[in-house]
Amino acid sequence: MKRIRLTIEYDGTHFTGFQMQGRGERTVQGVLQAALAQIPGALPKVVAAGRTDAGVHALEMVVHYDTEDTVPIERVPLALNALLPPDVRVLSASLAPPGFHARKSARWRAYRYRVRIGQPPTALDRNRVLALPGPLDLAALEAALAHLPGEHDFRAFANREERGTVRTLYAAKARLEGGELWLEFAGSGFLRGQVRVMVGTLLEVARGRRRPLSIAHLLERGRREEAGPTAPPQGLYFVAAGYRPWPMR
Amino acid sequence: MKRIRLTIEYDGTHFTGFQMQGRGERTVQGVLQAALAQIPGALPKVVAAGRTDAGVHALEMVVHYDTEDTVPIERVPLALNALLPPDVRVLSASLAPPGFHARKSARWRAYRYRVRIGQPPTALDRNRVLALPGPLDLAALEAALAHLPGEHDFRAFANREERGTVRTLYAAKARLEGGELWLEFAGSGFLRGQVRVMVGTLLEVARGRRRPLSIAHLLERGRREEAGPTAPPQGLYFVAAGYRPWPMR
Repeated sequence: MKRIRLTIEYDGTHFTGFQMQGRGERTVQGVLQAALAQIPGALPKVVAAGRTDAGVHALEMVVHYDTEDTVPIERVPLALNALLPPDVRVLSASLAPPGFHARKSARWRAYRYRVRIGQPPTALDRNRVLALPGPLDLAALEAALAHLPGEHDFRAFANREERGTVRTLYAAKARLEGGELWLEFAGSGFLRGQVRVMVGTLLEVARGRRRPLSIAHLLERGRREEAGPTAPPQGLYFVAAGYRPWPMR
Repeated sequence: MKRIRLTIEYDGTHFTGFQMQGRGERTVQGVLQAALAQIPGALPKVVAAGRTDAGVHALEMVVHYDTEDTVPIERVPLALNALLPPDVRVLSASLAPPGFHARKSARWRAYRYRVRIGQPPTALDRNRVLALPGPLDLAALEAALAHLPGEHDFRAFANREERGTVRTLYAAKARLEGGELWLEFAGSGFLRGQVRVMVGTLLEVARGRRRPLSIAHLLERGRREEAGPTAPPQGLYFVAAGYRPWPMR
């Protein structure tokens, strides 16, 4: 039995999320496993570096599966892409090293959130970016972001109760890219909803509705009701997972 | 009665094209007219600078309609966007000057075709760009493009028989933009399918399957069967229409 590591891209718009849940829901895991079920020898069980909610996209998600098939590794992307719907694409495939596990071996995950500022709503990017009226206070945003990196209890930013809520955030940055604000995060792991609640809270700071220092208070007090709203899913991208210690490369 | 000029953006993916045709087809004109039908005093008849086929997008299409409504002009985009589906957005509205007609007054139209070269197929941009294996011969492409500008009979590039097939092409250019090849055209007007057949033919040149000089022969001989295939719709964008003589601005 060999283990295959895939890098995949997907458009989350028409999925109820990555992970299989109830019957009749269209999930990324579900369409991947349906494709693998058509390859003799492949076990139709897919494990991913991270999970994404409905409407959230992935630029380079890492997944693995086990198989006894005879498909040469360099033909795997073509073979799987022929079996997958067009909103999921296999970008690359490799034989996983011994002991590799897409979720357990991952040392960091990176996300990006795209915000379009002060421009009219967009038809072509309506499922790709959050449109906000401008202007935004970027100095206040930077001050707020500075509180986030490090090992913290992030429970104030979680949308679901979880047992262990301490995580390490390696980076939390804002940058301007082609008329958009990109909020980028890399960390050891993220709680359910954490990135979107951080973004919703940070955007309140950027809009002058919350002080930058409130981020520090949220980390100290751990109260979800004191954080901001969950930012909508369409601006969020799972960017990459890393299997060596941060920093990247 | 006043005439309103709108600039609109749309995602052509889920439309059968701009123009209303049979019943039950979802067209851009149809959803615009359905929105206008809900504004008392507005005539639900929309005229556009150009038509686009199924799957073809528009960044700034110009349309007009006539109305006796009392909506202040600065509120028109917001009012219409509340009545339109999210894949059509009104970017701006203005009172049209006397005699203005979105189609008849237009002096030029501009289109862009996006080609993604030598990269794996993309999930997120699958309805936005044509993916082609590389490399492409850009020198041959430039040589082919050089034959196109000017007043010509473009019947070899038309997908439907039309009476007058002479048009003036003001510009035909290739440029590299973020890993993509963009083919851009501006002209007095375009025959049905003209941009996509020009692109399909030019890409044959770029892939070494046709000589650049064949473009000149096509313009001389006017035989559609000697031109290349119709490039698929998802890479094509109606960029803008101009109401003063070319060049732009």
